[in-house]
Amino acid sequence: MTITVDLNADMGESFGPWPMGDDAALLRTITSANIACGAHAGDWDVMARTMALAVENGVGIGAHPGLPDLQGFGRRRMQMPHDSLRNLVAWQVGAAQAMARQAGGAVRHVKLHGALANMCSEDAEMARACYEGALAADPDVIIMVLAATAQQTAVEALGCRWAAEIFADRAYNDDATLVDRRLPGAVIHDPDRAGARMVEMVKAGAIITESGAHISTPIDTICLHGDTAEAVGIARATRAALEDAGITLAQFPGRR
Amino acid sequence: MTITVDLNADMGESFGPWPMGDDAALLRTITSANIACGAHAGDWDVMARTMALAVENGVGIGAHPGLPDLQGFGRRRMQMPHDSLRNLVAWQVGAAQAMARQAGGAVRHVKLHGALANMCSEDAEMARACYEGALAADPDVIIMVLAATAQQTAVEALGCRWAAEIFADRAYNDDATLVDRRLPGAVIHDPDRAGARMVEMVKAGAIITESGAHISTPIDTICLHGDTAEAVGIARATRAALEDAGITLAQFPGRR
Amino acid sequence: MTITVDLNADMGESFGPWPMGDDAALLRTITSANIACGAHAGDWDVMARTMALAVENGVGIGAHPGLPDLQGFGRRRMQMPHDSLRNLVAWQVGAAQAMARQAGGAVRHVKLHGALANMCSEDAEMARACYEGALAADPDVIIMVLAATAQQTAVEALGCRWAAEIFADRAYNDDATLVDRRLPGAVIHDPDRAGARMVEMVKAGAIITESGAHISTPIDTICLHGDTAEAVGIARATRAALEDAGITLAQFPGRR
Amino acid sequence: MTITVDLNADMGESFGPWPMGDDAALLRTITSANIACGAHAGDWDVMARTMALAVENGVGIGAHPGLPDLQGFGRRRMQMPHDSLRNLVAWQVGAAQAMARQAGGAVRHVKLHGALANMCSEDAEMARACYEGALAADPDVIIMVLAATAQQTAVEALGCRWAAEIFADRAYNDDATLVDRRLPGAVIHDPDRAGARMVEMVKAGAIITESGAHISTPIDTICLHGDTAEAVGIARATRAALEDAGITLAQFPGRR
Repeated sequence: MTITVDLNADMGESFGPWPMGDDAALLRTITSANIACGAHAGDWDVMARTMALAVENGVGIGAHPGLPDLQGFGRRRMQMPHDSLRNLVAWQVGAAQAMARQAGGAVRHVKLHGALANMCSEDAEMARACYEGALAADPDVIIMVLAATAQQTAVEALGCRWAAEIFADRAYNDDATLVDRRLPGAVIHDPDRAGARMVEMVKAGAIITESGAHISTPIDTICLHGDTAEAVGIARATRAALEDAGITLAQFPGRR
Repeated sequence: MTITVDLNADMGESFGPWPMGDDAALLRTITSANIACGAHAGDWDVMARTMALAVENGVGIGAHPGLPDLQGFGRRRMQMPHDSLRNLVAWQVGAAQAMARQAGGAVRHVKLHGALANMCSEDAEMARACYEGALAADPDVIIMVLAATAQQTAVEALGCRWAAEIFADRAYNDDATLVDRRLPGAVIHDPDRAGARMVEMVKAGAIITESGAHISTPIDTICLHGDTAEAVGIARATRAALEDAGITLAQFPGRR
Repeated sequence: MTITVDLNADMGESFGPWPMGDDAALLRTITSANIACGAHAGDWDVMARTMALAVENGVGIGAHPGLPDLQGFGRRRMQMPHDSLRNLVAWQVGAAQAMARQAGGAVRHVKLHGALANMCSEDAEMARACYEGALAADPDVIIMVLAATAQQTAVEALGCRWAAEIFADRAYNDDATLVDRRLPGAVIHDPDRAGARMVEMVKAGAIITESGAHISTPIDTICLHGDTAEAVGIARATRAALEDAGITLAQFPGRR
Repeated sequence: MTITVDLNADMGESFGPWPMGDDAALLRTITSANIACGAHAGDWDVMARTMALAVENGVGIGAHPGLPDLQGFGRRRMQMPHDSLRNLVAWQVGAAQAMARQAGGAVRHVKLHGALANMCSEDAEMARACYEGALAADPDVIIMVLAATAQQTAVEALGCRWAAEIFADRAYNDDATLVDRRLPGAVIHDPDRAGARMVEMVKAGAIITESGAHISTPIDTICLHGDTAEAVGIARATRAALEDAGITLAQFPGRR
C-alpha cells in the first residue's frame, strides 16, 4: 500500500518594497503553495511573481485569504460579521484566480490565514461563512482545513471537497489544539525531530499529542512554515524523512 | 433597420460607512453597470450588494478597475510600470468575477476608471497593458473603450472583444477629446439636451463636436454619470429620448 | 449657583470623496468637536477643513483617535497589544495637533472612537495605555471619558486632566452602561425628550437610568451624535432645553 | 578654522511584519535620522522604536514625510494639489512630533522622501507647499533640502531655517542634478571613493560634478543611504574619511 501526503507552505507574503521568506527555495521542496491575496500581505505584483514561480515548479496553487490588516499581518483578531467574511474571502479568492490564470495556472485550494484561521478553527459557523465565500468563487475548489478542528466540522457539513493538514513544527494538546507558542516545546526547531514525527503521524493516520495520545484523523498535507530562519531546513528534512520512509509526496486529490 | 445602444454607468463606489450615488435608481435605467473593485472605491461588501442588485435588475456586469488610491478616488495620476498595471487590473477583475459569481452573475465587460482611463485614452501602450490584465482574467471579456481614443487603438491591436462608448453629458473637441471640465459648456446639465444629442450622435454613428464636426465612430454604449445631483434625471431623460426615437436599448454584444 | 456644561460631537468623519455628517451645522450648536485623525475616518484634507471650521466657530478642538480600520469605520473590535495602542493614539493625536496648529487652533481634548472607546470603557488597563499615548503627545491635554466607566477609572489613576461625558440620545442601564442598541428605547429619537433628560441629569449631577435610579457622576459634557438623520435636530433641541433651564454652555475646563 | 558637517540617513522604513535596513548600525554612525511617518513606510510601532533608538544614540530626529503610497514606497509620482500636499506634510510631521516626544526627543528637521522629494527638487512652488505644511506643524523646524535645487529656492523664499544636503554615493551632472541611476557610475559603491569625494566637496564648499566642475553651495549634511547592502560600509567609511580629514561631525544648526 502506498501512502501519499502533500507538503504545503504559506508564501507570497512580501509587500511592495518589503520581501518576506525564501519562496524560491521552498517551492523546490513543497507540493502545494498557499499564496497571500493582498489583504494581510501580498500585492498584485507579489502575487504575479509568486504564481509564476509556483507554476514553474509544478506546485499546486492555493489562495491564502486573511483579515484586511496589513500592519498586523492578519494576526490580530477582528470582529467581522459572517456576511462580510464571506464577501472578504470570495473577493480574495477571485483575485487569486485571475492572478493564477495570468501565470498559466489555476487555484486548486484555499487555506485561511492567521487570526482568521485561528478563529475558524474554534467556530464552525464562522468557518462555514468563509468557506462559502471560497466556494462562491469556485464550487470545486479544495478547502484545506486544520485537521480535527471546527474547520473540519464546517467542510464536512458543507459537503465540499477538502483536505486536512497537520503541522510539522508544532506540538499538539490532547484535544488536537496546538500547544501555546509561549510554552516550552510548543515549536519544534530541530529538523530531524520534525521529520521523524511527521513520518510517525502520517503512518499512524493520527495526530500524536505531547502526552503520546493518538487522535485519529485524515492527514492529506503537512504545513511547513516559510517565515522562520530554520524554515527551509525543516522543510527539506521533513521531505527527506518522508521519502526515506517510502511515503509519496504529491498534491492532495481532495476528499468529500 | 434597428439601431441598438447600451446605457452604462459607474456604480458600487461606496466604501465602508460612506455611501455614494443612487445605484438602485440608476440600475432601473441602464443596461450595463461598471462596478468598482476595491482599489479606488468599493469594498467586498459594497461589491456584493451592488452585484446582487445588478443581477436582480438584469443589468450587464462590468468590472471597473482603478488606481490603488482610495483617498484620491483613483482620480490622481500615478506613475506605475506597465507590468504593475497589468497585474493591478487582473487582480481587480478577478475579484469582481468572484463577487459576480457569488451573486449569480458574471463579469461581461471591463471599463477603466478615472485617472487610469484618462492616461490610457492618451497612451495605447499603457491601455494595452491594462487590457492584457483584464484578458488574463477572462480572454472573452468585452473591453469598453472611450471611442476614438488610444483605448480604441489598443483593443483593435489586441484583437479582443470590445465596445465603444460616448458620454451623454460631456462636450467634445474636434480631436474627439472631451472639452476641459473647467470651460463653459463642457458639462451638459440639461437632461433634454443630453437626450437629444445622444439620439443625434447614435443615429449619425458619429461623435458630434462643439464645432458641429462629425467624427465617425462605432457607438455601442452611452456613459451616464452616477455621482452628480442630476445624474438620475439625465439618465432617465436620455433613455426616454432614445426610446422615443425608436432606438433599442440593450447590452452591447461586443465587436472584434 | 451657575451650572455649566459642554456639548460635544464627533466630526471630520468624511474621507476622500465621501462626505459624512453636517459638520457646519453641528459646529454652530456644540462647544467641543471630536475630530477624526485618519485611522478610522478623516484624512489630511478633511482634518484641515474641519479644524478650520472649528476655529472659525470658536469650538474646542479634540482629537478623536480610532482603530486603524477604515472599511469598518473603527467599529470592529481588533486585538492590539497595549504598547501598540499607546503608539497608535500618540500618532493620531500628534497628527491632529499639527492640523489644529495649521488652522490657528490647538487640540485641547482627546476622545476615543468606536470599538476602541467601547473596549476601553470595559478595561481600565487598555484605557490607560491609550491615554498614556495621548498624554505623551501633550501632558496637559484633557481626556474625555465615558462617565462612570473604566475610562474614568483610568484617568483618575493617571492623575491627568479629564472631563466626563454622558449621551443625549442613549438610555442607560443601572450599572451605567448603555442599553443595547437592539433593544426598544435604547436610542432616543425625540429631540424634546433628549433635551428634557439632559436638563434633568445635569441638574441632578447624575446619570438617570431606565429604571429611574440615579448614579452620581461628574457631568462635564454631553455627547451629541452627528451621523444620524435627526442629529442636528436633537443637538439644537438639547442646546435650547439646557439654555431655557438656565444652564450655561461652555467648554469644560478639565478636572483632575 | 573648523569645518563641521552632519551625516543623515533615512530610517524607520520597516512596516508591520516587514523589516527594512539596519537602523541600529546606522544610528551609531550618523548624526541625523530621517524617520518615515506612516505614509510611504513606517507605522506607529516602527516610529516608536526608531524614535527611541535615535534618542538613545543622541542622533537628531527628522520627520521624513512621503506620498501616501505604501505599496509603491512613495517612489511613484502622484498628482496632488498643493493644498493637499501641505496638509499631507503637516499631518505626517505632527505624527512624528508626538512620537518623538513620547520617546523623550523632538523633531528638529524635516526631509521629503522619494517621488515627493524628486518632484519638489524640480518645482519650487510644490516644495513651498510641502514646507509650509512642515512649518505649520513647527515654525522653527529645520527644512533639509537637496543643495542647489528648487527645494533650496523654496526655503530661501520662505525665510525659514534650513540645511543643505549632498549625496555620498551619487554622481552629479553639471546642473547639480543627479546622474540617472541607469547610467554607469551614477551610484558609487566603493566606500573609500565615497569618503574621499565627500572630504573634497565639503572642503571645497561645492558639489563636484562628473566633469570636474565645481558648483558652489552650502553643505550642511551628507546623505547616506540605508537600504542597500553596502549602506553601513559606505556610512562608516565616509565618517572615517571626514574625521581623518579633521572635519567635525555634528548636527547642523540650521541656517536662514
